Formats: sequence, structure tokens, C-alpha cells
Amino acid sequence: MRAYAPSLKLGEVFIGVQVAKIIESKHPKFPVGQLVTCHFGWRTHTISDGSPIRGVPPMLVPDLGDLPSSLALGIFGRPGNSAYFGFLELCNPKVGETVVVSGAAGAVGSHVGQIGKIKGCKVIGIAGSDEKGNWLKKDLKFDDFINYKTEDLDKRLTELCPEGVDCYFDNVGGETSSIVLSHMNLFGRISVCGSISGYNELVKATPVQRYVVPKQLRMEGFVINRWMDRWPEAIQQNLKWVNEGKLKYRETVTEGFENMFTAFVEMLKGSNFGKAIVKA
Amino acid sequence: MRAYAPSLKLGEVFIGVQVAKIIESKHPKFPVGQLVTCHFGWRTHTISDGSPIRGVPPMLVPDLGDLPSSLALGIFGRPGNSAYFGFLELCNPKVGETVVVSGAAGAVGSHVGQIGKIKGCKVIGIAGSDEKGNWLKKDLKFDDFINYKTEDLDKRLTELCPEGVDCYFDNVGGETSSIVLSHMNLFGRISVCGSISGYNELVKATPVQRYVVPKQLRMEGFVINRWMDRWPEAIQQNLKWVNEGKLKYRETVTEGFENMFTAFVEMLKGSNFGKAIVKA
Repeated sequence: MRAYAPSLKLGEVFIGVQVAKIIESKHPKFPVGQLVTCHFGWRTHTISDGSPIRGVPPMLVPDLGDLPSSLALGIFGRPGNSAYFGFLELCNPKVGETVVVSGAAGAVGSHVGQIGKIKGCKVIGIAGSDEKGNWLKKDLKFDDFINYKTEDLDKRLTELCPEGVDCYFDNVGGETSSIVLSHMNLFGRISVCGSISGYNELVKATPVQRYVVPKQLRMEGFVINRWMDRWPEAIQQNLKWVNEGKLKYRETVTEGFENMFTAFVEMLKGSNFGKAIVKA
Repeated sequence: MRAYAPSLKLGEVFIGVQVAKIIESKHPKFPVGQLVTCHFGWRTHTISDGSPIRGVPPMLVPDLGDLPSSLALGIFGRPGNSAYFGFLELCNPKVGETVVVSGAAGAVGSHVGQIGKIKGCKVIGIAGSDEKGNWLKKDLKFDDFINYKTEDLDKRLTELCPEGVDCYFDNVGGETSSIVLSHMNLFGRISVCGSISGYNELVKATPVQRYVVPKQLRMEGFVINRWMDRWPEAIQQNLKWVNEGKLKYRETVTEGFENMFTAFVEMLKGSNFGKAIVKA
């Protein structure tokens, strides 16, 4: 199957982005004591010559003031930039439009919904527990929330969005997304960030073409490396929003390198709020 | 269900576009003897005040020289303009790219494939009989053809397009389209014109999001009314290509108004080559 990233071979280091501290260096751009992010994978120590891993070179962690450096893995890293570029560039949300986000309590989804509010949209999140939903509504000011595990998604969308949906930020794929597409307005935009519902097992879903044609929808997928040349723009804007109190984040931190596997499985099960981090 | 056009209510005139001859007129723009096209539906006589039906006003048939006026329903009408705008505007094909067309022997599909050849692309058609395939290859100069009823589509696409697919013009939706999407290249474009596989019964299919994300595909649906303001541009270019011998067409003509229903069902069964016409 084709997942978001290339499949691992047996014996390969498991993939993952780290914030790593430089403890020895012969490279003037990467002095001892600085923090870097890179796809170093699940390991405690790495020797790097500065060349890209999975298409991305090591990058110095930007100055985040008093904020924790782990945010370079979340709101000021790939998830934060995915929310910024993936939502703004592909959904092009306008004031007064209705935005639906699936995987809404994850690192990317929770960020996308807040950008939607900043841009003057009505925002509905789809997530898998009422605890997540309460966080989205109370703390992040989402307009409302649908628990896809306990509620009828189609019925709830009809209730919450009688005006129809203009933008859909899709983290999950599968039947959830087919149902959202059936509620979309003419010339609606769908940004596809992930399809986690199909990563483990492939379940067939209602074909989306039946909705894409009459409503003339545009659906586009992305991988965040696409906007690598504009990387600092997103970080600076997100940092500004955080400092202004307009953008909130949450991390689910697991202590101990030896708990990496458990943290990963819990994230896939949906136990995390915001970015799942392991502190080694 | 949501189909291409709004559902009919019991007692309504069945939808359909006609070439009609004006036999009486009080409108200076529509003189007696002229031919007009409009969504008059399945009937022999119509009284019109020139106002739009299903969003489109009656339009005079353009001067087609010695060509039959029924082509105003096909290659110089909605199907021809769907091929021209839907393919060129949404797929943006480039010289040397690989194009796949489903419903390739229909009015729109056969036209799209030929535009693909005119634009310097490799073109593969998907259709439901070898007779259709031979027409596409021999007469219309498609590079090759896949019979989705007798061949393994996935295997044949691997054989015929080892370089991957850049543009997909989708008339059918369903599993056929999911399989084509699994063969697409980075930044591939999908123009969705129809989803005939789901019009009668809804069969679930492999979700497309799993292909849309890693290959960063863009899929867009359209209804041809969208380019109404550029209507003559497509007709003039298609007429030029026909007169230059670069664009061929075929019509499947059924004689007799009373055979309308049979002609319609045969079209849905896939018996037609090119545009299905009923001559009343």
C-alpha cells in the first residue's frame, strides 16, 4: 500500500523527527549547544554531515523566546507549517465561510481550525471523544464539534451546517470524508493532508466523484516539503499568533525513550491531544 | 442520491438537449427556419420565450458548413465543449505527458483523447469493448486501449504506463478511477466529468485520499455551464480541428422519436460510439 511516507524495511531505524542538541561539531553552521530538527528517527545519538534525510536537511530551531523547544516538532514545525500552508494555500478560506476539519484534535487539525477562526470562518471539528470536543470548543473556540464515534456525522452536519460546507481539511479519508463531501457547496475546496483511516486496513468508501462533479469541488493533496522555500514565513506567522494569544497548542508528552513505541501506538489509537512528543 | 443533474419528478418532461427548428417566431433573434439548441427535453414541439432552461438559454446553432446540425448536440455542443474546457483547463496537459481517459469511446472521452494527441501527449483509453478499442486506436490514433470488462486494469496500466500517469479525465468514478489514481505521478491532475459507475447503484470503492496525499494530486469536478462565457471559443477551435482532419467524431443515431427510451437505455448500457442521437 501507499502511505504518507515510504514503507520501512526490516532493520531500518524507525522514522520520526527529533529536536536534537548538538554536542560535537565540525560544521560552522551547526555550533555545539544549538538545537536542530531533522528526520533522525528513533535514536538517542546521530552523526550528521548536514545532508538531507527524507528530503529535508537538518534545520536550526528558530528563536522561540520562552516557549519550549519541543514546539519545533509541532506548532513551529511540520505540523504547524502543514496547517498554515495546507489550509491557506489549498482551501483559500474566506470570511464567513464554513470550514470542517477532521482529525480536529490532532496537531495539524487543532491548528487549522484556529486559523479558520482567525480568518473569520465558522469552524466545525470532527474528533473521536467528547473530551477532545470540549477542548476544541472551550479552549480553541471552534464553533462546534462532532464525535464521529458516538454521533451520526451526516445528521449532525445537516444540523450544524445547513448553509453547506465551503472548505474541508481532511486528515482521515474514508467514509468520514465521503460524508463531509456530500455536504459541500458549489466550488468547495478540499485540502487532503492525510488518510489515517486507511493506514492500517483498507475499508472501501462511497466514491467521492459523485459529489465532486455536481458541486464542482477541487480536492488537492499535499506533502509539506512542497513549501520548504517558504518555511520561515509560516513559523513567523504562527509565532506571532501564539504571542498574541490567538493560537493555542497542546502537547501530549511521554517521558522516556523506552516508551517511544507505546507513545506511537497511543497516537495511532487517538489518545493524544495535539502533537504527540516523546522526551528522551 | 446526487447525480449529474437534478432528479426528475414524476410527470416532468424527461431531460435532454435538442436541435430544434424554429417554425413560428415573434422574437427577432430567433427567426423562422433557424436551428436552436436548448434543454427542451423529450418532446416534439416546444414553446419558448427565450428564457433559460436548466441554466442555459436557447442558442442558435453555429454555421457548421456542410457538417450535420446534430453535431451541435455532440462535438460542437455540450460534450465537445466539456472535452475542450474540462480537459484543457483542469488537466493542463503538457507535451510528452501521459493521459488516461475513462469512458473513452463516448462523446466526451473520444474527443478528450484526440485533444491529448493534438497536444503531444501519450493517450490511453479505457472502454468496455474491443470494437470500441479498435476504433480508438485505428481511427482516433489513441496510443492504446484497455478493455475494463475483460482485462486487469491495474496490470495493464503498469504495462502500458510504466512512466506513470500525469492526467486522468474521469467519466466513470468508482473502482476504475481508484485504480487509475494509484498509477498517477507527482502533481498529477484529475478532471472529473462524470461518475456513471455510480448512477444506478452505489458500489463502494477504494478511497482516493491514499493516492491524493503522497502524489499531491489535484482532482476537480466540473459542469460545463461554468465556461458558458467562453462557449464560442471551444466551438471554433473544435470546428477548425475537424476541418483540418485532426479531430474525428462518430454518432450513434437512432431513428424515430418513439425509440427515445430504448436509445437512452442502450447508451447507459454502453452500446453507443460517440454521441447518442435520436432523430425525430
